Amino acid sequence: MSSIVIAQGGGPTAVINQTLCGAIVAARRHDPSLRILGARHGVRGLTKGDLVDLTQLSETDLLRLAHTPNSGLGSTRDKPDAKYCEAILTALQKVEARAFVYIGGNDTAGTLDILSKQSTGPCSFVHAPKTIDNDLMENDHVPGFISAAAFVANAFVSIDLDFRAMTGIYVGIVMGRHAGFLSAAAAGWQQSADEAPHLIYAPEKPFSVAQFLDDVDAIYTRTGHCIVSMSEGVQDETGRPLADVLAAGALERDAHGNVQLSGGDLGIEIQRALKERFPKARTRVDTLGYLLRGYIGMIDETDAKEAFEAGAFAAQSAFTAGSGSVVLHYDGHRTTPRIVALDQVAGRTRHMPDSFFAGSNAISPEGRRYFHRLLPKRPDIFTPFV
Amino acid sequence: MSSIVIAQGGGPTAVINQTLCGAIVAARRHDPSLRILGARHGVRGLTKGDLVDLTQLSETDLLRLAHTPNSGLGSTRDKPDAKYCEAILTALQKVEARAFVYIGGNDTAGTLDILSKQSTGPCSFVHAPKTIDNDLMENDHVPGFISAAAFVANAFVSIDLDFRAMTGIYVGIVMGRHAGFLSAAAAGWQQSADEAPHLIYAPEKPFSVAQFLDDVDAIYTRTGHCIVSMSEGVQDETGRPLADVLAAGALERDAHGNVQLSGGDLGIEIQRALKERFPKARTRVDTLGYLLRGYIGMIDETDAKEAFEAGAFAAQSAFTAGSGSVVLHYDGHRTTPRIVALDQVAGRTRHMPDSFFAGSNAISPEGRRYFHRLLPKRPDIFTPFV
Repeated sequence: MSSIVIAQGGGPTAVINQTLCGAIVAARRHDPSLRILGARHGVRGLTKGDLVDLTQLSETDLLRLAHTPNSGLGSTRDKPDAKYCEAILTALQKVEARAFVYIGGNDTAGTLDILSKQSTGPCSFVHAPKTIDNDLMENDHVPGFISAAAFVANAFVSIDLDFRAMTGIYVGIVMGRHAGFLSAAAAGWQQSADEAPHLIYAPEKPFSVAQFLDDVDAIYTRTGHCIVSMSEGVQDETGRPLADVLAAGALERDAHGNVQLSGGDLGIEIQRALKERFPKARTRVDTLGYLLRGYIGMIDETDAKEAFEAGAFAAQSAFTAGSGSVVLHYDGHRTTPRIVALDQVAGRTRHMPDSFFAGSNAISPEGRRYFHRLLPKRPDIFTPFV
Repeated sequence: MSSIVIAQGGGPTAVINQTLCGAIVAARRHDPSLRILGARHGVRGLTKGDLVDLTQLSETDLLRLAHTPNSGLGSTRDKPDAKYCEAILTALQKVEARAFVYIGGNDTAGTLDILSKQSTGPCSFVHAPKTIDNDLMENDHVPGFISAAAFVANAFVSIDLDFRAMTGIYVGIVMGRHAGFLSAAAAGWQQSADEAPHLIYAPEKPFSVAQFLDDVDAIYTRTGHCIVSMSEGVQDETGRPLADVLAAGALERDAHGNVQLSGGDLGIEIQRALKERFPKARTRVDTLGYLLRGYIGMIDETDAKEAFEAGAFAAQSAFTAGSGSVVLHYDGHRTTPRIVALDQVAGRTRHMPDSFFAGSNAISPEGRRYFHRLLPKRPDIFTPFV
C-alpha cells in the first residue's frame, strides 16, 4: 500500500502542527486509500523506521494537534549528507512512499534538494516552509513568523509602558541569527520613529558597541527613556557575529579558564557596557530567549491559517506537480501558496531588504508598512500620564 | 475644594491601572464634587506637586486606561523616611486631601503606615495591593499575580512542548526575589509530578548548585527531558541569595577587574554548570525577565476584575473606614476585598506555605490546587507523538 510521509525539522514554531495537519487533510482528500505516516524526529526517525501512523487520526485529535504549538512529531537538526540521504530513500521505498513532505527551513529544503536529485523512484519531495526567522527566499513571509513577530511586538509595547512608569534604558535581545525580521518586528506597530523601540539593531547592518552606546546616549540624555530591540545575531563590520567576537575576546582576557562564565553572552556584555557608560541610569537587558518561538498564548490566526494552507498545498503539489518548495506569495492583496524549485530556497538566506532600514538603527516607513500588514491589530492602549 | 489623591508605587503589573480606575470610579460615586488627583511617579511626584487632574477623565479614557498594563501615573522606588513623609503630608494638605490611595506592595504599605502615624489631619491613608510576587501578608492572592502566573504557566507548557520536539534540559529563571509563588506557578497546570516542570526551586527552600545538578541528572538520565522553573531569588542554606553569592565569588576569582562580566548572573552560572555536567546534552537557560510582569498579551480577566474591585474598595474604605490596607480574602468560594491595619502588611513578606512544597524541589497537590484555582483554564493541548 502506497504512502505519504510527513516530517518536521529544525526549530519549532507556534503553528508548525497546522502545516502537518494541512498535509494530512490534503493527502486524505487526494487519495483516501493512502497510508499517512509521520516520521518521529524528522529524517533521524525516518531512517530508523520510527514512524507513527496518522491515517486514522480522528478529526478531534487533528483539531487539537493543529492548535498545539511546537513540533508534534518531534524534530531534528541533522543535516544529511549523500550517504544519510541514501538511508532516507531506502526508508521511503520501504513504505512505498509516493510523497515526502518535510516541514522546515532552508536546511530542510536542502535535504529535500539532495533527496530529489539522488532519488530514482516515483517519490516526490516537497518542502513546506516554517521558520520564526522569516529568512526563506521566494517567500513574502513564512509560516511561524507572524506569531513570533506578534509576541515580540506585544513585548515591546508592554516594556515601553513599563519603562515610562520608571524611566531608564531597556535592551531586549531577540532571536534571529542571520536575518533581522524578528528584531525589527518590535517596530511593527510604530507610527513614527519617535515611538519605542527607539533603536533597532539587525544582523544586516554593522554593529559596534561604541556606536550603540552613542546612539543610546543621544536618546536617553534627551528623554530619559530608551528602548532597544537588538538581534542576537548582530555582527561587526567584518561580518563576525558579536556573540562570537565576545567569546573569542573572553578567551584572550581570562587566564583562569572561566571561558563560558565571562564574555560570551551578548546580554551580559551589553548590560556591562551600559552600566559603565550610564552608571546612574536604570538599565535592564533581557534576552527574550525561546519564549517567542512557540508561545501558546500568542498564536496568530492568520499565521495558523496560512500554515495549514501551506501544508495542504505541499501535499497536493507532491501528487500533482512533483518536487519543489512551497512559498507564500503576496500579490499586493492576498497571500497564496505557490511552488518553486527546491534549489531556489535550499541553503539560502533571505535578509531584510535595504529599503526596510532607515540608516543603521531604525526601520523605514516601508519596513513598518510590511510588518504592519502582517501583524494583528495593535492593542488600543492609553498613553500614560508620564 | 477637597480631594482624593491616588498614586502608584513599585514595579508595575498587568492590571495596576484597573486598581487606579476602580479608585477613580468609587471616588466619583462617593462624592461627585470631589477633586480626583493622580500623583506622577508616586510619592516622588506628590512632594513636588506634580499632579494630574483625573476628575474629568472620560468614560472612554477610563476604559482604555484600565486595559493598559503598567503604571499609567508612573511609579517610584523611593522609600520615604520621617522627613520625606512630612513633605508628603504637606503636599496632601495643600490639595485638601481627604484620602490618599497608594497602590503598591509592602514597601508602599510601609510608607502609608508612617504617614498615618505622622498625620494630624483628616486624611485617610489606604493601601491598595498589587504585586506580581504575591508576597503580601493577609492576602489569599494579590492583584497582578494571576496575570503574571498565567504568563509563566503558558510559558512552561510551551517550553515543555519545545523540549519534547528536541529533547534536552531547560531552565527558566522566574522573577520573585523573596517568595516562590511565581516560579511555582509554572506547575499550576501540572496534573502529576511526572509532568513538566519536573523541578521547581523557590527561595523558601535551600538551594545548592550541586544538589540541583544531581536532581537534573536523575530526571534527564531517565527520560532525556528535564524542564526546570527556578526563582531568581534562590538562596543557599544560610539564606544568602545565590545571585549575591555568585557576585561575591566572581570578585574573589577574577583578578582582572571584570567583575560584572563574570559570575554575577544566575542564568550564566547555571548554564555553565549544566554544560560542564552534561556536555553532550542540549541545554538552555532563559531568564524570563520583565516580560511576565506586564505583558499586554496576557491580562487575566479575573485578575483585572479583582484589581478594579480592590481599587474601588480602597477609595470607599478611605471615606468610610479610615486608614488601612485592602487585602483579598478567600472564604473557600469567593474572593472579596477586606481592610486590615496597615502594619499587618507593611514591610512584611508572605512566603509560600510549607504545605505547598513536596520536598525541596516540587509542588505538593495542595500547592497545585491553589495555583489551579487561580489560573485560567489550561490550554487543551495534543500530547506529542514523541
